Amino acid sequence: MKTIEQNFAVPFRYGVYFTEGLFQPENSMLTDVLAQDNASSTRKVLFVIDSGVAEANPALLGQLNTYTAAHADVLHQVAEPIILPGGEVSKNEPEHLQTILNGINAFGVCRHSYLIAIGGGAILDLAGFAAAIAHRGIRLVRVPTTVLSQNDSGVGVKNSVNAFGKKNFLGTFAPPFAVINDSNFLLTLEDRDWRSGISEAVKVALIKDETFYQSIKADAQRLAQRDMAAMQKLIHRCAELHVEHIGGLDPFEMGSSRPLDFGHWAAHKLEQLTKYSLRHGEAVAIGIALDVTYSWLKGMITEQEYNEVIALLQELGFDLFVPELVQQEANGELSVIRGLTEFREHLGGKLTIMLLAQIGLGVEVHHMDQELLYQAIHLLQKKQQPHTLPQV
Amino acid sequence: MKTIEQNFAVPFRYGVYFTEGLFQPENSMLTDVLAQDNASSTRKVLFVIDSGVAEANPALLGQLNTYTAAHADVLHQVAEPIILPGGEVSKNEPEHLQTILNGINAFGVCRHSYLIAIGGGAILDLAGFAAAIAHRGIRLVRVPTTVLSQNDSGVGVKNSVNAFGKKNFLGTFAPPFAVINDSNFLLTLEDRDWRSGISEAVKVALIKDETFYQSIKADAQRLAQRDMAAMQKLIHRCAELHVEHIGGLDPFEMGSSRPLDFGHWAAHKLEQLTKYSLRHGEAVAIGIALDVTYSWLKGMITEQEYNEVIALLQELGFDLFVPELVQQEANGELSVIRGLTEFREHLGGKLTIMLLAQIGLGVEVHHMDQELLYQAIHLLQKKQQPHTLPQV
Repeated sequence: MKTIEQNFAVPFRYGVYFTEGLFQPENSMLTDVLAQDNASSTRKVLFVIDSGVAEANPALLGQLNTYTAAHADVLHQVAEPIILPGGEVSKNEPEHLQTILNGINAFGVCRHSYLIAIGGGAILDLAGFAAAIAHRGIRLVRVPTTVLSQNDSGVGVKNSVNAFGKKNFLGTFAPPFAVINDSNFLLTLEDRDWRSGISEAVKVALIKDETFYQSIKADAQRLAQRDMAAMQKLIHRCAELHVEHIGGLDPFEMGSSRPLDFGHWAAHKLEQLTKYSLRHGEAVAIGIALDVTYSWLKGMITEQEYNEVIALLQELGFDLFVPELVQQEANGELSVIRGLTEFREHLGGKLTIMLLAQIGLGVEVHHMDQELLYQAIHLLQKKQQPHTLPQV
Repeated sequence: MKTIEQNFAVPFRYGVYFTEGLFQPENSMLTDVLAQDNASSTRKVLFVIDSGVAEANPALLGQLNTYTAAHADVLHQVAEPIILPGGEVSKNEPEHLQTILNGINAFGVCRHSYLIAIGGGAILDLAGFAAAIAHRGIRLVRVPTTVLSQNDSGVGVKNSVNAFGKKNFLGTFAPPFAVINDSNFLLTLEDRDWRSGISEAVKVALIKDETFYQSIKADAQRLAQRDMAAMQKLIHRCAELHVEHIGGLDPFEMGSSRPLDFGHWAAHKLEQLTKYSLRHGEAVAIGIALDVTYSWLKGMITEQEYNEVIALLQELGFDLFVPELVQQEANGELSVIRGLTEFREHLGGKLTIMLLAQIGLGVEVHHMDQELLYQAIHLLQKKQQPHTLPQV
């Protein structure tokens, strides 16, 4: 009997919006965004909030109540916000996922209702996964509160939790209804979290946009000193480059190529080896340094380019070595190099690693030379700055 | 700062193939289908099999070994098949989902590897959900083995498990890599499973295709007597209508409309009320009878049309009444009518119910009259055939 061919395309559309003071009653951004659904009645909303954000912004819960009361014609909270610990470790805990699903069930959050997640990348990943699988997908508005989530993970189409000790083992591709970046949340960040996400901007600049790279270099001191205007500019361009890339050839990553994961094969493994005490962005800075060093040793970029990138990462305040880089397996192999295999398994298909052809231009390879990798790691070890050593 | 607009479409494509004896070594359908991925090496495959299918086809596991050995250049099994109980109740058990995820993790099944699920709709839903969330999606080949899964659920883009006592509470939209219908599996079905899926064909014919309805009517006796040629014809056309509809306006059901769920608001609730002792297709037959009766009472179709549809369902062998249709809540309300609210909550948005304007043409309404619903239920109760009563 004749084969039946299925063939369709699913359109997705969302905005990444920028504001300050999103939940001040006179700020109409959220209500304008929700009104795009043309619903005829007030919308059910359930907030999921990163406990770190709630603690750093003790007025937030009260603001949400005032805000939703002032806009009751547009939205109402179906229940008190769900507050969960942030950070990558919270993605290891199945009960956090269950807590969100319980709320969705208990309070009748449907496919036309909204989960609004406020927090760093981990909470957005976790809440996004819950939203993606409940009723086969309820609407998600992401309000990223860290540099990393505002310029990278929060603006994309992925969600996840960890399982079997593996980062992002479970997840889906599920575009959000909207992403709203409120730069006021950046004011209360710890220095580590302020800095951490800058590495993703360096990453995308290095592989795609030399002009952006030069602008980060010019702003490096201001960024390190928490200049908000410089940071807003960096976040906007970084988010834009990520959004452009994702909307390009392969949004749901059906192929083997994943250029935005430059520096990430080692980063993911280092996060796991450090039991997530290393922030994702900190691990990415080390991963970039490693792959830039490798690119130089392989003769792909000049020594000057290599030195310049390393110097920029250091000027931004990143440490480019952790002892876990030289941790060994029982057989003497460096543990971090296991990350190459895990990276390939997670993506599937052929090993595909992004390296640098020049500043502003990435190039993909399908093999990494283990001997050169060892050399690159030892160069990073030798280069480690005195200030990164423990004080005695 | 300027809003960044994301806007893309994700293309999906898969075939629904028909064969007999899929795992006979000389049958090249599966290897031809897998070869569409243009992989340069042999593919990792993990089979998930419905225990009912394994029991009814005791040679199957041996056939799979012979088959994969004969085609080792195209595919190899990463482990022994995972065998899980089928039927809707297995979607209630989180450990079955975990068993599949464990296998995917333990045996390195990646985004370019294949889960091949062989079984009825429940196993396909369950294995499909595991495949959709592991590594954000590994490839799924569905081999549906029941009439229902071959002509409806197995050819679509959804997967699910049950949670909080609610059918399909968790799931995603995730198109399969391919669907392969092997009619030999129908030979070993119990009569209930042979019959059950016919209701989905009646459903889609009633709302979309009068010619198909007349063909089912002409074949009713042959279908009831397990004529394979008549069944193959029915399955092909029913699958085709489902595939066409899904590939149409709203494959991932972002709107409120769900025309293929004609008769399903009551069916889902009856499955739950009967603790899934009623097969999905049996419940759908009752749901269709209820909504056809309601359509007549509401003056939307003629008495003749109403009588004709009821007679066809009975001729096919369906019982059109179960005691749970008149089960009451503590407040005296009929429990089945709670299904209307749950249906709306699951879909989200406005209540949207498909009814009949004529045979072959559905029409959507946004309200159901409770008094007429009571009348419709009592008419079904009165119409119940003597043969459906327990023998004493």
